[in-house]
Amino acid sequence: MSRFLLGILGGMGPLATVDLMQKIIEETPAHSDQQHAPVVVWNVPQVADRQQALAGTGPSPLPQLLHGVRRLNGAGASHILIACNTAHHWYGELAAASRAPLLHIADATLDSLRPERGERIGLIATQGTLDAGWFQQRIAALGGETLTPLPQEMREWFVPGCYAVKRGDLRGGGELLSRLAQALAARGAARLILACTEVPPAFAAIDSPWRSVSVDPTRALARAAVRHWLAYRDGV
Amino acid sequence: MSRFLLGILGGMGPLATVDLMQKIIEETPAHSDQQHAPVVVWNVPQVADRQQALAGTGPSPLPQLLHGVRRLNGAGASHILIACNTAHHWYGELAAASRAPLLHIADATLDSLRPERGERIGLIATQGTLDAGWFQQRIAALGGETLTPLPQEMREWFVPGCYAVKRGDLRGGGELLSRLAQALAARGAARLILACTEVPPAFAAIDSPWRSVSVDPTRALARAAVRHWLAYRDGV
Repeated sequence: MSRFLLGILGGMGPLATVDLMQKIIEETPAHSDQQHAPVVVWNVPQVADRQQALAGTGPSPLPQLLHGVRRLNGAGASHILIACNTAHHWYGELAAASRAPLLHIADATLDSLRPERGERIGLIATQGTLDAGWFQQRIAALGGETLTPLPQEMREWFVPGCYAVKRGDLRGGGELLSRLAQALAARGAARLILACTEVPPAFAAIDSPWRSVSVDPTRALARAAVRHWLAYRDGV
Repeated sequence: MSRFLLGILGGMGPLATVDLMQKIIEETPAHSDQQHAPVVVWNVPQVADRQQALAGTGPSPLPQLLHGVRRLNGAGASHILIACNTAHHWYGELAAASRAPLLHIADATLDSLRPERGERIGLIATQGTLDAGWFQQRIAALGGETLTPLPQEMREWFVPGCYAVKRGDLRGGGELLSRLAQALAARGAARLILACTEVPPAFAAIDSPWRSVSVDPTRALARAAVRHWLAYRDGV
């Protein structure tokens, strides 16, 4: 049995995990089932709400996330991906509890998005991800500048758009999230990072015109995982 | 942590597993992430080719399938689904090795498809699934009749269509498989069972007109799993 095994800590939400799995398959050059990466997935959505936890209005999801990481290690995962931007808030604790290394979604994203000097990048993300600063710090280190949503834009468009996706209303969510993309572009964002895993499926559902100027961290994470798989598979 | 946990033995192919996961989510009435079923997935495609094994031209996949079932049990699965019709050939051995009960895809399918007395049902499946007779026996027990593809139709349409999907050519596969659907309908099949997990995504990719008269065993299996989840979640 292969010693290479991608582990996915998912369930946040369950559809975002399916989206990551689909993108790993799409990004893999393969002529047969057997050439695709082996993946074990913990798609268990009984995790305390990340946005509420970081707002101080709900319990921490850390115990459930640690449980998932332990199960993935127990199943033999050699590399772990977290299929949720916001859950990267607990990256340090999870990495410390894991034998398998955890890839970071912001590292993977900045590998795909190389900002020009002075370029303004719009960041669509939960308040927790915005506050954490992972994307902003990496963009600044490369000479770019990050535009983030205003509090009112978060309240009226981001939060209801995100929860619409979670209850299966991808089109409704896509319309709300597109308004936020429009507002960031109007303030000068040349490109966008869709740094909440609910956003790319919502934009796909309405075939949003913002997709053409967006970087999808889920796809970037899939590409990073596939690079590891191909290095193992093809021995390079 | 929940004692309910769906386990999916997947990887055959990896896209068919993603399709089953997506359908489990679609079939679940839910207003939040937390209301969706917890799922652990063994999406490891390094499994010997099932069609070749049953044709006597390749090694048995049983050792790899048993490994997957053991890993799912080790991760705490309470019910196991096999995301591949053909792999149900080893259902008995896998069920015997599993603490968690295994749902059978043909049982789930016949719950969705109630044949009329004398109704002709077309069966699109691998040679291994056709030879096993699971679907035919259940259809006959309910008074229906099964139409199966001719050897030439398997050679020219089914096998190349199925392997086209496995290498990512969903549209090409969908076109070939639609010709087989057409031939079965021309011989009197009123409805079709798409009893190979590669077929429903291929028909979806080309929005095949045959979808309207087809039963999708992947969706039927998803529904059976969701019934178990709702009984647990809602305590009914």
